Amino acid sequence: MTAADAYAELIRRSKELGVLNSCAAVLSWDQHTYMPRNGAGLRGEQMAFLASLSHQKFTDPKNNELLSTIEGSDLAKDPEADATANVREIRRAYDRATKIPASLVDELARVTTAAQQAWEHAKKANHFATFRPHLERIVELKRQEADAVGYKDHRYNALIEEYEPGTTVAELKELFAGLTKQLVPLIQKVADSPKKPDRSILEREFPVDRQKLFAESAAASLGFNFAAGRLDTTAHPFCSGFGPGDCRITTRYNPRFFSEAFFGVMHETGHALYEQNLPAEHFGTPLGVACSFGIHESQSRLWENQVGRGRPFWQHFFPRLQQAFPAALADVSLDAFHFAINDVKPSLIRVEADEATYNLHIALRFELELALLSGDLTVVDLPDAWNTRFTSLFGLTVPDDARGCLQDIHWSFGGLGYFPTYTLGNLYAAQFMAAAKHQLGAEILADDMRRGDFGRLKEWLVKNIHRNGQRYRAGELCRRATGSPLSPESFVQYLNEKCAEFHGVC
Amino acid sequence: MTAADAYAELIRRSKELGVLNSCAAVLSWDQHTYMPRNGAGLRGEQMAFLASLSHQKFTDPKNNELLSTIEGSDLAKDPEADATANVREIRRAYDRATKIPASLVDELARVTTAAQQAWEHAKKANHFATFRPHLERIVELKRQEADAVGYKDHRYNALIEEYEPGTTVAELKELFAGLTKQLVPLIQKVADSPKKPDRSILEREFPVDRQKLFAESAAASLGFNFAAGRLDTTAHPFCSGFGPGDCRITTRYNPRFFSEAFFGVMHETGHALYEQNLPAEHFGTPLGVACSFGIHESQSRLWENQVGRGRPFWQHFFPRLQQAFPAALADVSLDAFHFAINDVKPSLIRVEADEATYNLHIALRFELELALLSGDLTVVDLPDAWNTRFTSLFGLTVPDDARGCLQDIHWSFGGLGYFPTYTLGNLYAAQFMAAAKHQLGAEILADDMRRGDFGRLKEWLVKNIHRNGQRYRAGELCRRATGSPLSPESFVQYLNEKCAEFHGVC
Repeated sequence: MTAADAYAELIRRSKELGVLNSCAAVLSWDQHTYMPRNGAGLRGEQMAFLASLSHQKFTDPKNNELLSTIEGSDLAKDPEADATANVREIRRAYDRATKIPASLVDELARVTTAAQQAWEHAKKANHFATFRPHLERIVELKRQEADAVGYKDHRYNALIEEYEPGTTVAELKELFAGLTKQLVPLIQKVADSPKKPDRSILEREFPVDRQKLFAESAAASLGFNFAAGRLDTTAHPFCSGFGPGDCRITTRYNPRFFSEAFFGVMHETGHALYEQNLPAEHFGTPLGVACSFGIHESQSRLWENQVGRGRPFWQHFFPRLQQAFPAALADVSLDAFHFAINDVKPSLIRVEADEATYNLHIALRFELELALLSGDLTVVDLPDAWNTRFTSLFGLTVPDDARGCLQDIHWSFGGLGYFPTYTLGNLYAAQFMAAAKHQLGAEILADDMRRGDFGRLKEWLVKNIHRNGQRYRAGELCRRATGSPLSPESFVQYLNEKCAEFHGVC
Repeated sequence: MTAADAYAELIRRSKELGVLNSCAAVLSWDQHTYMPRNGAGLRGEQMAFLASLSHQKFTDPKNNELLSTIEGSDLAKDPEADATANVREIRRAYDRATKIPASLVDELARVTTAAQQAWEHAKKANHFATFRPHLERIVELKRQEADAVGYKDHRYNALIEEYEPGTTVAELKELFAGLTKQLVPLIQKVADSPKKPDRSILEREFPVDRQKLFAESAAASLGFNFAAGRLDTTAHPFCSGFGPGDCRITTRYNPRFFSEAFFGVMHETGHALYEQNLPAEHFGTPLGVACSFGIHESQSRLWENQVGRGRPFWQHFFPRLQQAFPAALADVSLDAFHFAINDVKPSLIRVEADEATYNLHIALRFELELALLSGDLTVVDLPDAWNTRFTSLFGLTVPDDARGCLQDIHWSFGGLGYFPTYTLGNLYAAQFMAAAKHQLGAEILADDMRRGDFGRLKEWLVKNIHRNGQRYRAGELCRRATGSPLSPESFVQYLNEKCAEFHGVC
């Protein structure tokens, strides 16, 4: 078989797997939106069947042969060739999938299923001991997974690789150190400022049907294509891109709090714009898949925060918002509203945090995950370690584990290595936005937004991020789009400007 | 391999296929309910992938070996044993699936896809010639399909077998002859009666949100389990039972016509009660699947017509209906409403027909399908044959082909042999209802309904119909449930009683 034939066959198989996996995506979406309660048993069987078939097809040794044939040729050597990126990423995923023994995959599935239930109970009862043995087992299994996959320097590198290929503990440590050093004093300055926004204006009556219409119109303005997607309601918001022409986002509505659904929709719309603008012709291959979790998060954070908490955005939308919610907002000024949605204030819960303190929540989790995996920290000591470090970062006392180390679901499903991608998203978002402003003109972009026109910014993201799929790893993608490697600089500068805007010089 | 081992493996494979096919059912439901327009391309690929995988797994020669091993033993000889029914029906389906050459399956798929588009255009433009060459090709391919499957006496028997295994042209001819002979004069008597209902009371303002609530409460009263199902809105109503715990029905609402959504929901609820009460432990095997299309239709027709157009049902529901729609119904009496929903009147369109004349629409189509398949009628002569026979059955002149032989989608998707199952459903429904009344007491059932209690009737159907799956063929199921083979007698008697109720002695 020639390398060209091998590549054609590899792509055919990859695209078939793309279709198969997209079936599971539809079933998963239905499970979270419309499935009746008693359908859970059958849905579990359906998902297990599709996952097992997908794993079996992907780990077929024939794929290894095809990859080896191509790797032994010149076909995938040109760094700009489609084949190079596709073969690199299929190889990475194939090696990972085949290095982890089936017995470990099975045990992780069994242990994390039980652990998620235990975590729910433990959180509800504020009783860490209920969750502790499950987490101990998960840490042990994730160590085994890292050992099976292989790593340099730190086991954690093998876990990061699942979400953010090419990123290392060393890089993350440096990023978090630089970021934390600047964030902590900045947050302190805001806390010390006498100017405080009136957050209560966001907690008035916002009828849900009107919230839905307003959020949909904002999403459409950003470029979400409703002919190729939907917005539904779920307990936990998410975005699922099934493939070309079909991307679904969800949110949840709080009739007494405007920000929850609206910024949720802005966030998911950011994810969705990425999914809707991946190159359809590459669907099912790495070139048709988003670059990494961190880059995906950058798109959601860019639209949610960089755009959606900006003044130009609300110069356009605030009059419309007042029309939609006259009872709540007729007596509120744009300034007051804009300040309220940009409040920075240390708080206990990650998912409720503002865009600045959010990253301290992540820094904490990253440190603790590293220590758990290396063995420097035992699970039994986790609550104390959490609480001590939390106080040093936030200046707050953690009142209980439910609002401390039990607050997130991630560890219960074995997602160690996932948290850092949230902060990577924030940093990439700021750096992309700074580059877009530099290249397109900050004032031109602001004028666009004041007219409710986001096309120019979106097209820049499509061209520099979305259309590339996995052609480059995240770090390289960032260098090409912005001219520099990732650093906290743009993000810190963005926060400093916000701080100056609301509190005077920071 | 022992016969017992072969049977266990056959069942394992059958259940796996059940799960696989249920994935396609979810995707198909989503396609008709919530899928955004641009998702159609990907959905086509997903459905084709799942269908091809299902066909490949089902026609695996290993299944033939397993079947042969079991058939060569005593394992599937006892007529009451689970294995007997499962092996009989898997064998039938396997033989059918493997006898039809893949090339014919492919061509039928291609030809019917084009034919459905051509039919839509032809119907819209009232231009039979647009559809004619497509139908000619379909008739030819269905002949080839019948020849590949094999048949006794008439090619049409091979096509009926797909929908109503064990039923023959000879039986259908006898049923339709007996039925038509009695229906035509009965319908004439109603037409000659001076008493006419006021149908306009059904065509007042019925707000859609209230229609939805009312239909849902009626469906729940009949026994539809909303924890194991949903009601959604689609252009064409349907019921899809994915499997244990998940059955979805749909309807469409007309704000100016009460009957459309309500009797649609009653109809689909009848299908859904069947699906919700199939034995879950047999899911994926013939014992967990509905007996036949005719028996399925009997369940929808029983609840829609035998129950839902009956006086006891409305003695309970009409006061509630008046409360829900005071503007439309405050001045309407139960008598007037009950008469309006039982109007019998020859009309051009099958899907708008009343429960009596409906069967003449089917008799016509059955005759024409037979003649097309035997070659006694050519496609080019179909419009004339339709119009002539329509006038002799209905006493009406067909004004154009759009309201004549182009009105139904069925032929365009190759569904020759399907239509008779509608009338089989009506006849089975009447015979089942008569048997239930005989066994449980007609007055007791009527009293139940007047209280809005349908449990006793539902349990009779669960025990005598639903729980049997495909344990017996339709004819045998009917004999066991009612003590007699299927005949038009109960149905004609039911219509005569209705006629007497509204028009005096018939």
